[in-house]
Amino acid sequence: MYKKVVSVIGGRNCTVEVEQLAKELGKKLTKVADILVSEGLSGKMKAVCQGFKASGGLTIGILPGYDKNDANDYVDIIIPTGMGLARNLLVVKSAEVVVALPGEAGTLSEIAYCLQFGIPVISFNSWDIKGVIKAATVEETVNKVNELLKENKA
Amino acid sequence: MYKKVVSVIGGRNCTVEVEQLAKELGKKLTKVADILVSEGLSGKMKAVCQGFKASGGLTIGILPGYDKNDANDYVDIIIPTGMGLARNLLVVKSAEVVVALPGEAGTLSEIAYCLQFGIPVISFNSWDIKGVIKAATVEETVNKVNELLKENKA
Amino acid sequence: MYKKVVSVIGGRNCTVEVEQLAKELGKKLTKVADILVSEGLSGKMKAVCQGFKASGGLTIGILPGYDKNDANDYVDIIIPTGMGLARNLLVVKSAEVVVALPGEAGTLSEIAYCLQFGIPVISFNSWDIKGVIKAATVEETVNKVNELLKENKA
Amino acid sequence: MYKKVVSVIGGRNCTVEVEQLAKELGKKLTKVADILVSEGLSGKMKAVCQGFKASGGLTIGILPGYDKNDANDYVDIIIPTGMGLARNLLVVKSAEVVVALPGEAGTLSEIAYCLQFGIPVISFNSWDIKGVIKAATVEETVNKVNELLKENKA
Repeated sequence: MYKKVVSVIGGRNCTVEVEQLAKELGKKLTKVADILVSEGLSGKMKAVCQGFKASGGLTIGILPGYDKNDANDYVDIIIPTGMGLARNLLVVKSAEVVVALPGEAGTLSEIAYCLQFGIPVISFNSWDIKGVIKAATVEETVNKVNELLKENKA
Repeated sequence: MYKKVVSVIGGRNCTVEVEQLAKELGKKLTKVADILVSEGLSGKMKAVCQGFKASGGLTIGILPGYDKNDANDYVDIIIPTGMGLARNLLVVKSAEVVVALPGEAGTLSEIAYCLQFGIPVISFNSWDIKGVIKAATVEETVNKVNELLKENKA
Repeated sequence: MYKKVVSVIGGRNCTVEVEQLAKELGKKLTKVADILVSEGLSGKMKAVCQGFKASGGLTIGILPGYDKNDANDYVDIIIPTGMGLARNLLVVKSAEVVVALPGEAGTLSEIAYCLQFGIPVISFNSWDIKGVIKAATVEETVNKVNELLKENKA
Repeated sequence: MYKKVVSVIGGRNCTVEVEQLAKELGKKLTKVADILVSEGLSGKMKAVCQGFKASGGLTIGILPGYDKNDANDYVDIIIPTGMGLARNLLVVKSAEVVVALPGEAGTLSEIAYCLQFGIPVISFNSWDIKGVIKAATVEETVNKVNELLKENKA
């Protein structure tokens, strides 16, 4: 059986508003994907995992450190790499489509890895780099993830 | 919800007999664990994944290369690390208990990582190194995995 | 004894003109730095190593693969990581100052790692990302490397 | 110009006696090798680096963490990987010959990597695993390193 995998990347810090948006994104992504991969820590990533899991999806957290307790409560499967920022690559390479939420340089390195590997990356109000697919709303983001996952499967 | 994770390590090459044993091990491990982690390639590892999946377990393959197609047909979730042998560490660190099947130096490096991290490792007719827990049959191996997973949870 | 380390990043492909510029950069960098770190392969990176070594500097190549023979002829010390693109991080983290030559997404991921770690990165006609220090000529690049290495030491 | 590279591995903790032996080993290794690679931290590794550097050799430290200040005072070139125990592989893969001093499971994982890669590993009163070359004194160790480096070059 084929499993559709999406990764969500982006910085941890966020306002209550953005957190709500991230949770909503997680919820709606379950309609188009089976598995969510993320760094599995706090802030926006926690909100996305919470939404995805609440709607029945399976969540994977690829942690920078060795301690499984660092993962947020909504991560089903924890991969504690202990590899620091080298885990950025693992987070995106596991997915067929990546969604980038706003973030700093760490997010940029992950977007760059997507472009290098040829993995489609949707920038939901995140970095505007040549090669990314831009989206402005949760709806638009989820629709684009859906199209890309279907293409990938065909 | 708590998920119990076991990793199985060991070389790829195997006789038909050992392959049967590996498949049986996979099947019986689903009674005590929810998730099986392995390198996800061929030979013994394919047989373990096949048995585990056939009995309703979820399988994760942490690949040495970048190509998801390298995974065997019984891997549900593929993590294509592209990190070569550095992925040995990831395979064992993701689990609470590790089962070592017979193998060469690669298996030894994984056993060593278990000992270094303090992850209990059951040697099912594999390397006899100070610190490993020895087992001689599938039954004995599964029973020991069960006990160790319970201790870990307590 | 204190050793000043500079990394040079950027794509492999280049015109004869850019190759000349890269070799010149390598030569002039020996005036301000003791050690050059790069991915150690072909094209621009070979030219930089050649220039740096010709002027008496020590060169380190952090390879993506396991084969030492992949390194160009001007690498003194070869670190064959076998970690694929995860070695991008190692190339920049080893240095106090990084010079980015033109390149594609791989170069962008390395620039992003610099920004994430707070390592100063000089973009010599490379990516124009918020946070990089821009330079337009070999002279300007070398002068900026020199200033930054001095600050770092102080 | 060809550079001969030796790695020394082994645990950190040591008695004053073993520390003296390690320093002596470092000193004598400069007669047969140009570059010493190690994890670059404290204890035995510091003593080996000190001896090697005092006799004019070049030392490289491949650190588990991101902080260059973790390196001992006798490391010339610091590679701060931030990759935790995954850096074990890098320490041995950079060398043509490896010397193992006494150590625990971490040392065993490095020996195992040597065997997996086919890099000759001399066990100087360290783990007695099938495939290692045993040596009982500093003299014997240095002689064996010398022979193996010559073979490698031929």
